[in-house]
This record gives sequence, C-alpha cells and structure tokens, in this order.
Amino acid sequence: MRNILLTVSYDGTDFCGWQRQDKADKGSPVRTVQGELEAALSKLHKSPVTLYGSGRTDSGVHAAAQAANFFSPIDTIPIEKYPVAVNCLLPPDVRVNSAKVVPEDFNSRFNATSRTYRYFIHTGTSPLASEMRYVWPIHHHPDIDVLNKMASCLKGEIDCASFAAAGDESKSTFRYLDDAHFFVQDDDHIVFEITANAFLWKMVRSITGSLIFFEKGNKPADYFKEVLESKDRSKAGPTAPSQGLFLWSVGFDGKRRHI
Amino acid sequence: MRNILLTVSYDGTDFCGWQRQDKADKGSPVRTVQGELEAALSKLHKSPVTLYGSGRTDSGVHAAAQAANFFSPIDTIPIEKYPVAVNCLLPPDVRVNSAKVVPEDFNSRFNATSRTYRYFIHTGTSPLASEMRYVWPIHHHPDIDVLNKMASCLKGEIDCASFAAAGDESKSTFRYLDDAHFFVQDDDHIVFEITANAFLWKMVRSITGSLIFFEKGNKPADYFKEVLESKDRSKAGPTAPSQGLFLWSVGFDGKRRHI
Repeated sequence: MRNILLTVSYDGTDFCGWQRQDKADKGSPVRTVQGELEAALSKLHKSPVTLYGSGRTDSGVHAAAQAANFFSPIDTIPIEKYPVAVNCLLPPDVRVNSAKVVPEDFNSRFNATSRTYRYFIHTGTSPLASEMRYVWPIHHHPDIDVLNKMASCLKGEIDCASFAAAGDESKSTFRYLDDAHFFVQDDDHIVFEITANAFLWKMVRSITGSLIFFEKGNKPADYFKEVLESKDRSKAGPTAPSQGLFLWSVGFDGKRRHI
Repeated sequence: MRNILLTVSYDGTDFCGWQRQDKADKGSPVRTVQGELEAALSKLHKSPVTLYGSGRTDSGVHAAAQAANFFSPIDTIPIEKYPVAVNCLLPPDVRVNSAKVVPEDFNSRFNATSRTYRYFIHTGTSPLASEMRYVWPIHHHPDIDVLNKMASCLKGEIDCASFAAAGDESKSTFRYLDDAHFFVQDDDHIVFEITANAFLWKMVRSITGSLIFFEKGNKPADYFKEVLESKDRSKAGPTAPSQGLFLWSVGFDGKRRHI
C-alpha cells in the first residue's frame, strides 16, 4: 500500500475550511476541502480514502501548497498521473498540483517541521475585480520599514497568547517562529510572510491585523513588542479578514521543535 | 453636467457579459456588468444613469480595464471619490479602478481607437486553484517561436472572416490589427496579446484556439496564414474558452480607423 503525499491548492472562498466535518455535527452537509478531496480520491480508488493534512486552515483561507498524504488502496495508477486523474473529479476551486510516494511512516502533520503563510494586502485605491477574492484592501500605503521594525520581535520561541483567538484549544501558546517580514510586491501590493513550527488559531490574521492597525495609528515601533509581551489578547488589534491569507508552503526538512 | 470616464475591472465568471439585457428580452433578470454598474451609479446619484462602454465582452470574459462613460446628474461628488463611492455599492466581482472628467462630446465607444486583449494560458500540469477562473489550462508547453511565427501575419488591414463566429452582426469582417504576439510570463504561463481597432464576435478566442491547436497538431508555420486567407470559418481551430480572456486596455490616443 503506497503512502502518497499530495501538494494541494485551494480557493478557500466557498469552503468552510480544510477539515472534514461530519454531517451529524451540524445537521446539514458542510463543504470542506478535505471532504471534497476525500470524495474524489475515494471515487478514483473505488474505496474509502482518508487524507491526513499538515494542519487545518479556517473558513475563507486559501492554500497555494497544502500538504496531505493518504494510503492508496490500489497500485495501478502511475504516481505522475495522480494530479490530472484527481483533478478531473474535483471542483475547480481545489487542485492537486503534485503527487509523490513517501515512506510508509510519513505523516503530513507530524513530519511537517514548518508552515509558511503569506498575507496579501492591497494598498491602492481599489484592487482589480479578479483579485478581490485574494487580497485585503486597506486603502492606504503603510510604511514598510515601520512594519518590519514592529515585526522584528517575531523570532524564536515566543509565547503568542496575545494573538490567540478565544476558543483555541492548544495546550501551550508557545510557538517557534523562524521568520516574519513584509515585502513589496509592486506599487499597490505588500505581502506579509511568516514561518513557524506551527500556529495558534487565527494567529497570522491577528498578527497581520495588529501590525497594520498599529502602523496606521502611528504607534511607536516597540508598541507591537509590548503587546506581544503583555500576553493579553485584549491589547491586540483587529483580526485581518480571511481572504488575504494563503497557506503558502509546508516544510519537512527543518529542525523538529516540540512546542 | 459632467461627462465622467470610468476604468472598470470585472471577473466575468458569474456575468452574462457586459451589455445590459432588459428583462423583457429573456423573461427573467440577467446579470450583466453594465447592469450592475448602472444600478450602483443610479443609486449613488439618486437618478437613472446610462453607461456607455467601449464595447461588449462576452459571458465569462474578464476585464482589467474596460472604459465606460456616463453623464453625472450631480456635481457634488469630488471626481477622486468616485471609485470608493461606487465600489461600496457594487458586488466584489466588478470594481471601478479610476475616474476622470472628460469633454462633453467624449464617447467611450466612438473615441476608442484600439482595444487590447490578453489571453492567459497555463502550460503546466495544473494551475493553482486561485487562478482556475483566469487561465486556460492546456497541459502542454507549446513552442512559443512557432506560435509567434504563425501569429506574425496578424498585422494591418485584414479580412478576419475565418475567425468570425456564426451570428456576428458586423457589416464588414475587415479589422485593423496593430499587433499580435505571445510572451512567456513564467515557467507555466504564456500570454497572447492582441491589439486592433475593433474585433469581431469571439474573434480573439477563435484566433487563440486555432494557434494553440495548429501548434499542437504540428502544422507548418504558414498554415495559420492559409486559414486566415481562406476566409473560411470551417478551417479555423476550436474556440478557446472564455475564462482565459481579459479585455486588458482601451486606447484613445491612436489613429482612428473606420473599418
């Protein structure tokens, strides 16, 4: 039985997030990325397939390269044919972009050593209609040096309690952050990229929203660090909307950090 | 009464094209870009507004910069406030990106001297889910030099009858083509850009589909020219799907050509 790792992209707009939600939970079917993928894989293999994702993403959040593995009940499909074969059975807002065979004990969630998110911000008068699903329009041009100065404290082992959403079920609010910075994409777009071993629920959106809010409010550059160190959720700024956020990549080669 | 020129973008996926279609024509309301814009402008001005577009686009075709003008019944809204004011009243799949006051006798359709279209083609295994609405996935990497050699005859005053769709109501099938060429966007994307004084119905999609089809079928480079000169629609290749096509820009400064 081959263990197959898929790289998956999705437009989160019309999904209630990644994780399958059984009908019994809600009373009516809920459209999720995992649910759509498992249905397509089960149809392709003519046998029920369970998918193990590297982590959940929320309702409305997109992915450029989510990682998810499954055990293939048949060996007759050549591995290079998987993307096209599965995509034929999927709706257009979820795509399998690559597939490879991995060792039997590989698990997308437990083997992942890092997750990188990108948050896309439109800073001009109005985004084009064709990017409205994928950016947060903030209608002003923030000072990117100030933003990066604020974000420079997001490095190393950090208690992220100030950016944990109410209802997060994580045992610990500590996470290991590899990097967090803004870069200019073009005249009207900036991008916030953040990499960590893992994230708390809504943490990236809470950090992004706070940074943009504090910069606009002319807070001093060390104000963000004060909020981080306060471990007080009520001091954080508003949570940025889901549509600008992409799970950009999942790393499997880094150092494993159990925090 | 100010004559105001808007630059408008739209995601054509969920529209039945640009042109307003009165309910009486179809028996039920039909969602069009012009219809949505006129409704928003009429609401903003508290008075019916008629919009004059540079030309129609088909169902499913997008625009990055359609041009459309209207006569504003009130002068109290500063011109620079128009994009934000109208966008608040529009659905997210149509956006006003800029606005300026133009002379009273200006008309988007009759003053336009050129229209540029871009057709986006995905050549890799699978597009990302977030670009599925905006590209044509052809699943192979065509030889761009061959494509450009084929397209090189698309210059000057040309009878485009071979690429006119059945049902086109144009008096003449002649058009003046300024330029037509492919360029590489990145490893998995090529773009076909074509500029003319005007286009026949579905002409860009018919030309794009034919070029891709002939290249894939290893036709000699001058085969496309033969098809063009045959003026025989049955010799053209299949029409490329609407989702890859963007009305990219409308020119008002070129030479006016009445063909």
